[in-house]
Amino acid sequence: MAGDTTITIIGNLTDDPELKFTPNGAAVANFRVASTPRFMDRTTNEWKDGEPLFMQCKVWNQPAEHVAESLKRGDRVIVSGRLKQRSYETREGEKRTVIELEVDEIGPSLRYATASVQKMSRSGGGGGGQARGAAPAQGGSMNDPWAHQESQGGSGGNFDENPPF
Amino acid sequence: MAGDTTITIIGNLTDDPELKFTPNGAAVANFRVASTPRFMDRTTNEWKDGEPLFMQCKVWNQPAEHVAESLKRGDRVIVSGRLKQRSYETREGEKRTVIELEVDEIGPSLRYATASVQKMSRSGGGGGGQARGAAPAQGGSMNDPWAHQESQGGSGGNFDENPPF
Amino acid sequence: MAGDTTITIIGNLTDDPELKFTPNGAAVANFRVASTPRFMDRTTNEWKDGEPLFMQCKVWNQPAEHVAESLKRGDRVIVSGRLKQRSYETREGEKRTVIELEVDEIGPSLRYATASVQKMSRSGGGGGGQARGAAPAQGGSMNDPWAHQESQGGSGGNFDENPPF
Amino acid sequence: MAGDTTITIIGNLTDDPELKFTPNGAAVANFRVASTPRFMDRTTNEWKDGEPLFMQCKVWNQPAEHVAESLKRGDRVIVSGRLKQRSYETREGEKRTVIELEVDEIGPSLRYATASVQKMSRSGGGGGGQARGAAPAQGGSMNDPWAHQESQGGSGGNFDENPPF
Repeated sequence: MAGDTTITIIGNLTDDPELKFTPNGAAVANFRVASTPRFMDRTTNEWKDGEPLFMQCKVWNQPAEHVAESLKRGDRVIVSGRLKQRSYETREGEKRTVIELEVDEIGPSLRYATASVQKMSRSGGGGGGQARGAAPAQGGSMNDPWAHQESQGGSGGNFDENPPF
Repeated sequence: MAGDTTITIIGNLTDDPELKFTPNGAAVANFRVASTPRFMDRTTNEWKDGEPLFMQCKVWNQPAEHVAESLKRGDRVIVSGRLKQRSYETREGEKRTVIELEVDEIGPSLRYATASVQKMSRSGGGGGGQARGAAPAQGGSMNDPWAHQESQGGSGGNFDENPPF
Repeated sequence: MAGDTTITIIGNLTDDPELKFTPNGAAVANFRVASTPRFMDRTTNEWKDGEPLFMQCKVWNQPAEHVAESLKRGDRVIVSGRLKQRSYETREGEKRTVIELEVDEIGPSLRYATASVQKMSRSGGGGGGQARGAAPAQGGSMNDPWAHQESQGGSGGNFDENPPF
Repeated sequence: MAGDTTITIIGNLTDDPELKFTPNGAAVANFRVASTPRFMDRTTNEWKDGEPLFMQCKVWNQPAEHVAESLKRGDRVIVSGRLKQRSYETREGEKRTVIELEVDEIGPSLRYATASVQKMSRSGGGGGGQARGAAPAQGGSMNDPWAHQESQGGSGGNFDENPPF
């Protein structure tokens, strides 16, 4: 993909993530993030909460399972992904449009918390009889720049090479 | 601040974070992130690693301590912050300039890992006799939009109010 | 403000910008940007258009007038700003929520076009009897980090100092 | 490409852009952007200039020519692209590393200026005997998601279709 509109949103989960599986076994987690800006109130000279932004988020495959295992309502998170627009029709036949965030990367914020990190084996899909981790129709492993890396148990970036300076 | 150049970088820690304290007791953690893009090799039709980007990062106060406790070499992280340029002179009297990332928010990525999150009490600085968490001269609590919130043990965003729809 | 969710969106104006003035004389321009990502179709090995994202945008004060004078339907633009959520009630009493972009900076893209740039005098609001450029109630000049600079005809950044290397 | 570190920088050109052509005829323009943040000085309650960030930028092909024709020293611009690290050796044999911005999209800011926009025909490379617009070795047209669109004189996004609401 090229030309996607990418954003990073920082906020708190409004609920526990909801994990589901598609008919072909792909995991998907849905959750909402509330991001509340702060503004300086000039009359009192104090920082105050602004209007929160609520963003519906969706994450696929193994990361979806990791999100469901790791995060819960109220947790502060950093989420990076691509804005997507989805149209649908209500039962009354009205057209509606929502903007959602297709998550590329997410993690708990360490601003007010610590985290104990546990690396997972990278099965790269497949696995048990239910083929969990199988990619959804769109954005499947053929289009996934990280898929091959995963199946090799790759490094996720050559972090241990010497930096060039 | 306004008009800062903000970025989000996703990559792996090249080393364990290095935690220090300023003379007045403020914690600061330094670390480097290696971010490796992936590109499609048209001759083999496979995704391959591109040239990594190495970014020196700095995080202050309580989050610095959380980073030092939670993250280690090789961990994949999401980092959000502001690009800063720093000039210095070498022993030979040469002027050098480096670009660094002043971290606003950081967390371990859940792409290949799970995390057990532990919320910390928000002492808002002060605390023990060493006044850990005391803000550095620049970017101190007077300028910190989150400081008041912290000292109140605030919510970090009103995530538990009902969304307006 | 701190903690706003910022984005940059690149796309084309779906219509000419619509310029209005608030009762106290502040200019505001509304327009919509259509951003169309491109994806590689593996079956044909060709890049194709993905689903467009439509983003409603709002820009205030003198930049609003510059937008209305400079841009028209179809123009490709780069827009940088903050995501804002707005709730309203329909005539039928239903609650609706829309996400909009409060524009901080916008310009015509030079990907497929050239531009002849004309610097404008920076009156910093005030001016004629109608007080055009007067700031709206929210985000007024007291909160505008660029306002003082404007009224001085400031440099908009000390671009002409020697870089430190 | 995937996993690139993208940024948007807003600032002023420190000099006129410098346009060159590679041996095979590809245009490339180099320029530097100075981005100056503003901060609230609590002692005087006034916004002041912070430390500027200087970013070296590079843009390829037809957009490079458009930049050279349209922009000059002092112009305020919005630049969107990917951070790249480049290592080189000085004459003394020292290794140095610089961070640069590979530009995806750039335009003059309309904050303090108006612009007269002129759409250019999209020759998609080729053309005259000098094969201007021919892509450089890396990032060539085979990898350019916009190339096919260009050669068709495409719309640069289907901005004139009806939005889905």
